[in-house]
Amino acid sequence: MSKDRWILTSEDVEHIALGAGVLGTGGGGNPYLGKLMVQGAIRDGAKIEILPPEEVGNDDLLIAVSGMGAPTVSIEKLSRGTEATMAFRALESHLGEPARAVVCGEIGGGNSMTPLEVAARVGLPVVDADPMGRAFPELQMDTFNIGGVSTTPAALADEKGNVLILAHTQDPLWTERLGRVITVSMGGSAGLAMPVLRGRQLKEAGIWGSYTLARRIGRAVRQSQRDKIRPEAALSPLGARLLFRGKISDIKRVTTGGFARGEAIIQGFQNDAGSTMRVAIQNENLVAWRDEQVLITVPDLICILDDDSGEPIGTEVLRYGLRVCVLAFAADPKLSTPAGLAVVGPRAFGYDLAYRPFSALGRASG
Amino acid sequence: MSKDRWILTSEDVEHIALGAGVLGTGGGGNPYLGKLMVQGAIRDGAKIEILPPEEVGNDDLLIAVSGMGAPTVSIEKLSRGTEATMAFRALESHLGEPARAVVCGEIGGGNSMTPLEVAARVGLPVVDADPMGRAFPELQMDTFNIGGVSTTPAALADEKGNVLILAHTQDPLWTERLGRVITVSMGGSAGLAMPVLRGRQLKEAGIWGSYTLARRIGRAVRQSQRDKIRPEAALSPLGARLLFRGKISDIKRVTTGGFARGEAIIQGFQNDAGSTMRVAIQNENLVAWRDEQVLITVPDLICILDDDSGEPIGTEVLRYGLRVCVLAFAADPKLSTPAGLAVVGPRAFGYDLAYRPFSALGRASG
Repeated sequence: MSKDRWILTSEDVEHIALGAGVLGTGGGGNPYLGKLMVQGAIRDGAKIEILPPEEVGNDDLLIAVSGMGAPTVSIEKLSRGTEATMAFRALESHLGEPARAVVCGEIGGGNSMTPLEVAARVGLPVVDADPMGRAFPELQMDTFNIGGVSTTPAALADEKGNVLILAHTQDPLWTERLGRVITVSMGGSAGLAMPVLRGRQLKEAGIWGSYTLARRIGRAVRQSQRDKIRPEAALSPLGARLLFRGKISDIKRVTTGGFARGEAIIQGFQNDAGSTMRVAIQNENLVAWRDEQVLITVPDLICILDDDSGEPIGTEVLRYGLRVCVLAFAADPKLSTPAGLAVVGPRAFGYDLAYRPFSALGRASG
Repeated sequence: MSKDRWILTSEDVEHIALGAGVLGTGGGGNPYLGKLMVQGAIRDGAKIEILPPEEVGNDDLLIAVSGMGAPTVSIEKLSRGTEATMAFRALESHLGEPARAVVCGEIGGGNSMTPLEVAARVGLPVVDADPMGRAFPELQMDTFNIGGVSTTPAALADEKGNVLILAHTQDPLWTERLGRVITVSMGGSAGLAMPVLRGRQLKEAGIWGSYTLARRIGRAVRQSQRDKIRPEAALSPLGARLLFRGKISDIKRVTTGGFARGEAIIQGFQNDAGSTMRVAIQNENLVAWRDEQVLITVPDLICILDDDSGEPIGTEVLRYGLRVCVLAFAADPKLSTPAGLAVVGPRAFGYDLAYRPFSALGRASG
């Protein structure tokens, strides 16, 4: 991780979007449109600065931003590009205090681009950190909440100009519940600003270096495309491990209650010929079974990539016949503590499964 | 209408609750619990002052309060009593300016009591005015909105401590739409604070003397019970007119989308023997047909009272066999202008009917 501030180039944005797609584990929304918006802003002269967490003042007011909604919605209902900025501004106004930097609410998928769009509009730097190191479907599922940062106040804004503030909620699950019905009413997607935190809280509860990592992953995938090497070979120096290689033979997907839920079935080929992988989806890839044996679970990362190009495939565009490789990354340690697993472990998603650490998987089969 | 400030007595509250039940046209929630809370506060020493609109400063910040939700819900899910106060305080905090008085968002039904509860808690007077002169099912349906007062910011709070602020909406119908789904998520009822307005706006767009009128109606009904005279005889000096007298022979009611919808069928007796009245309900009584001829429509008031006692009967407790009289009052003139009818006329409720003024009804049959 760099300790220097850096100004984003258009190529950086390209790499970050690609790497964030890998970290998105199928969710977080497709970064494509956001990437074009950020690159357009840079072309028009915006200087978007990435700020190492060390550089943030302990008392600085920070606001995280992202998009809320199902990825299946985001490919049909285009964003106006100003939703998250409206939500960000609404919280500043509600608090009566200007923010000093923008924080990424979710590095995975399109939500990696949202803070950059906001930063370009409001002229503030973006901290090189996030609270997931991946994507998660629900808004209380992050290390800020796990670390005790309040989920409120939070703001939601839509492309029609509706702006709502969740001033206080009974608990983080109520923030999610109310935020979700509001998002569904807004048409299934909305700009989200939350949480509000101080620099000290970010340093303690955040995952450091998220943009740096996304850029490195993106660069590695691009390099693998040029060098025609396997995605897992390109990404293993960054911690990836190959789980499975095969062809998608079935996909079930339904958008319900503001989520894209379903599962993908992958018939193995090459070393995995004769085996079947099943991946359960709730916006993101959450659990993978190999021949009905649990192989890996949330919060560890399950990334489905195009087997030829290494490009990440979002759960909203998974389809029959795609040839894919499934890679895994270990979750950030903040997510796999007992407190973390209570919020983002398999049981938090309704699966009656114990979390099996990625490191154990490595030992068992390595 | 009195031009003097007055301090509410427990008997005043009794009369206002009763009169507000009549003005509620079946909706606005049952005033019973709210009445007990306000009388309890008075017994405990609260001085709740009713302030004539003339006494309000033109630049004074005012906030209206009410409860949001279907009356069928309010009889099963009791309020904590602090919801509207939390919403009121949330708007003050959001605006960074203290309010000078509490305004009644809806004089009809239980919402007549809500401002008194809030006033007792926050120590401010209640203005003798409201924006309906009755009850309406949707939050944009009032003379403040008709008169150009913004429906935002608005705040909703529930008994669990959830507090949401609608900071900005595309238009008043979006305030209603978002407010409704939030209320449903909160369990079907919530405390509402809206709109925020200045004294000048209240004087121009409000209906004056609402508490005074409710008290007069309540006193007249109590007097009629003591004197054993017909409800219509007691209330005709206050503008009421008898529409129908009969027995409820059928009632359809379903709570859907946050509203109590249905219809009541009344078989006439005495002068109305052989005739049938049908009353359409959406929280409130909205349209009455006599032998399938439209007799009266919203925004004029259709009040179903117990034929013996003159007590108002809420749409949530209408039931087979009740002997009732149906009275009408003319709507406030602000509601029956073309701009008013666009918001609260029969077509605004989905009925393909022209508004037929109560005064025309008087001429036709008088």
